[in-house]
Amino acid sequence: MMVPVNDIPLKDNPPDGPAAGGAPLRVALLGCGHVGSQVARLLTESADDLAARVGRPLRLVGVGVRHLQAERPGVDPALITDRVDELVAQADLVVEVIGGIEPARRLILSAMDQGAAVVTANKALLAAHGPELHAAAARAGVDFYFEAAVAGAIPIVRPLRESLAGDEVLTVMGIVNGTTNYILDKMTADRLSFGQALAQAQELGFAEADPTADIEGYDAAAKASILASLAFHTEIAGDQVHREGISAITAEDVAAAASWGHVIKLLAVARLIDQGEQRVSVRVHPAMVPQSHPLAAVRGAHNAIWVEARHSGELMFSGPGAGGEPTAAAVLGDMVTVARHRAQGSAGPIWRPYTRRPVAPMAAAETRYYVSLLVQDAAGVLAKVAAVFARHGVSILAVRQTQLEGQVGRANLGVMTHVAQDAAVQETLAELRAVPQVVSGRIRHLRVEGH
Amino acid sequence: MMVPVNDIPLKDNPPDGPAAGGAPLRVALLGCGHVGSQVARLLTESADDLAARVGRPLRLVGVGVRHLQAERPGVDPALITDRVDELVAQADLVVEVIGGIEPARRLILSAMDQGAAVVTANKALLAAHGPELHAAAARAGVDFYFEAAVAGAIPIVRPLRESLAGDEVLTVMGIVNGTTNYILDKMTADRLSFGQALAQAQELGFAEADPTADIEGYDAAAKASILASLAFHTEIAGDQVHREGISAITAEDVAAAASWGHVIKLLAVARLIDQGEQRVSVRVHPAMVPQSHPLAAVRGAHNAIWVEARHSGELMFSGPGAGGEPTAAAVLGDMVTVARHRAQGSAGPIWRPYTRRPVAPMAAAETRYYVSLLVQDAAGVLAKVAAVFARHGVSILAVRQTQLEGQVGRANLGVMTHVAQDAAVQETLAELRAVPQVVSGRIRHLRVEGH
Repeated sequence: MMVPVNDIPLKDNPPDGPAAGGAPLRVALLGCGHVGSQVARLLTESADDLAARVGRPLRLVGVGVRHLQAERPGVDPALITDRVDELVAQADLVVEVIGGIEPARRLILSAMDQGAAVVTANKALLAAHGPELHAAAARAGVDFYFEAAVAGAIPIVRPLRESLAGDEVLTVMGIVNGTTNYILDKMTADRLSFGQALAQAQELGFAEADPTADIEGYDAAAKASILASLAFHTEIAGDQVHREGISAITAEDVAAAASWGHVIKLLAVARLIDQGEQRVSVRVHPAMVPQSHPLAAVRGAHNAIWVEARHSGELMFSGPGAGGEPTAAAVLGDMVTVARHRAQGSAGPIWRPYTRRPVAPMAAAETRYYVSLLVQDAAGVLAKVAAVFARHGVSILAVRQTQLEGQVGRANLGVMTHVAQDAAVQETLAELRAVPQVVSGRIRHLRVEGH
Repeated sequence: MMVPVNDIPLKDNPPDGPAAGGAPLRVALLGCGHVGSQVARLLTESADDLAARVGRPLRLVGVGVRHLQAERPGVDPALITDRVDELVAQADLVVEVIGGIEPARRLILSAMDQGAAVVTANKALLAAHGPELHAAAARAGVDFYFEAAVAGAIPIVRPLRESLAGDEVLTVMGIVNGTTNYILDKMTADRLSFGQALAQAQELGFAEADPTADIEGYDAAAKASILASLAFHTEIAGDQVHREGISAITAEDVAAAASWGHVIKLLAVARLIDQGEQRVSVRVHPAMVPQSHPLAAVRGAHNAIWVEARHSGELMFSGPGAGGEPTAAAVLGDMVTVARHRAQGSAGPIWRPYTRRPVAPMAAAETRYYVSLLVQDAAGVLAKVAAVFARHGVSILAVRQTQLEGQVGRANLGVMTHVAQDAAVQETLAELRAVPQVVSGRIRHLRVEGH
């Protein structure tokens, strides 16, 4: 089934050739790590099924790598090549699972220019250069698919791009990073500190030795920009996403959330806001979610995406959000779609970011807040605190006062607000810090989503 | 924007015309009921967005109906016509929301023969004539899309047809009928009898005056056949689905399920079974589902579909499963996909039922069972009962004996089995009926899914 890269003849079968039993479609795989090795394996194992589903065989003509010497168990060594540009030039279909910006970007653009369809799992590249890649695909008239870039095997890119294309999406809100969900779940279920939960996640392989990309929300922000761009038909880059990680979340925050019937999740939130003009609020931050919300039930390293659309209502998609095999399965699904188009001489939809909706600054975001204050346990303090909220137009939904053990003369004040603009809440917090009866170093706040 | 049907010129714009700002794509809507009227409304309200997403405007050229006189608020009367064949002949894209077999079947085939793409929400027609319609679409080289036929606005047809096309689906299990889920949910949450819950559902419009199609599982069986055909790449008709409804479920069954930590749901189950040859077990019946399973959390009239695939793992899709507006939104999503293909001169994937996997008889289905017996409260009865199970190779997972109030000398025996073949359990039940210490008229059994 597999043929070394140098034995492949130059392109001799037009993409609009016979629909079944025709010449194989030539697949170049770029990258052979965690995901790439699984793609290579599944392509071989499922060759007959894939051929039947596409109407033509898929032939892996080479696996492009940087270092020829590395061990790649399960991948035919004859397919491995470091002559990556030559490999790309021979392919009908290029699968990019290198990750990162370069050389992935250059190779994808080169593939498109030469008429090859492209499937990628590269969220960082899409977040940084999405518009350039989409434009290149449209110019070349080739398919560009990337289901695996967000939430692993959970179909969410295709539903947003196609199933919901007749609707108006209002909110996309999801748990799109398995590492942080694992850590927060452990903190909630086993009452661990952030440090303990992170250490456990690292031990079990759910977190990297350098966990920054996950725990500081960079990974989730890249995915949020992709989801928001598709949902709202506009161009949003990863660095336009407001981003806060979970490293400052304490066991006390988790306990406070629980006492209000909530759990803390790292959410990617993209919401259409209409304050005179339509803008997209897109942000990644920890948030309290009511235990009754479907996102609260997402355990371990799982992912889930909740979508609210004007006519379809509330939809939820969940499943394993990472892992080499699920991600490879998503890549293969895209490959079948792209190969079917190729076999039929057609192509999938062109992405049109026609709304050009701008990104709203975080100050304009609208959400509920939970604010926890350590205050002097004296008459009139609650009135004073409430007046500060009122002065900034932040309406209070509920207040709870709790005595603290070993803190004579002090009490904890938990304040849950109605939906308010972020700017107003930040101003409220700033003024609260100056109230003499409030211990300024002990003010905590969390956004609250899912009501 | 809308033009009466008689003023539309004959086809003058080739389907492969310019991609943006070209001549409108002519849409014929067949049927103007619950879903059709919403499709007409949304097509008008969202005209600008749809045109931008497709690259060409969609123009509703007529709404085909049987009775011209009926009231159709919100639909331009000038579009209404009963000259349905003429309407079909003028369309690039035919949307069929009449329902039922004829004339829907004849009109769809006629549309395809004349080169029009077809979008339908007609589950009954697909369940009865799916292969004929798919073959006609393939022959004519036109698109045939039907996301709205299963689970309303929840994207499940496209994920099965495309997202999971690189994977091997093992099980599709879902709550695909909102009426029965509403009834069972009411029975569970409010301890109503089946009759009380049905009456309430009818009062609130969740059940029809004649609820047979829903409560006896015909609607779910049609959807199960569509899901199973797509998931397993084979042709399965609605009447090949084993079907049991919920009208025999009692408040006692619901209470017994709860005492075992389960809820009762009407499930559509399609599973690949390998007993020498690969066959598809496809069935609709009430089943006990563990409270911890995501399907157990599906409340009210909602729908949800749980998919297990070899490489992707366990995925779940949930949302509103019915209603005119969500169903219309699913239809519009398909229309955008089909119209994009038309504007680009391409077409979507051809469905290939290449596996030709046969349907397994219900006797070959494999699942867990819960069996409830009313027995004489005497020494040796449990041993006798257990021996019957053992004789048929049905392994017991757990047994619970409960005394019954007002039933002196009698006890209830609840038996939970391991996975067993349906045939073996039916033989077990037959033999249990003949055991003198078992009250034969009081044997109840329920399948158990979701472990």
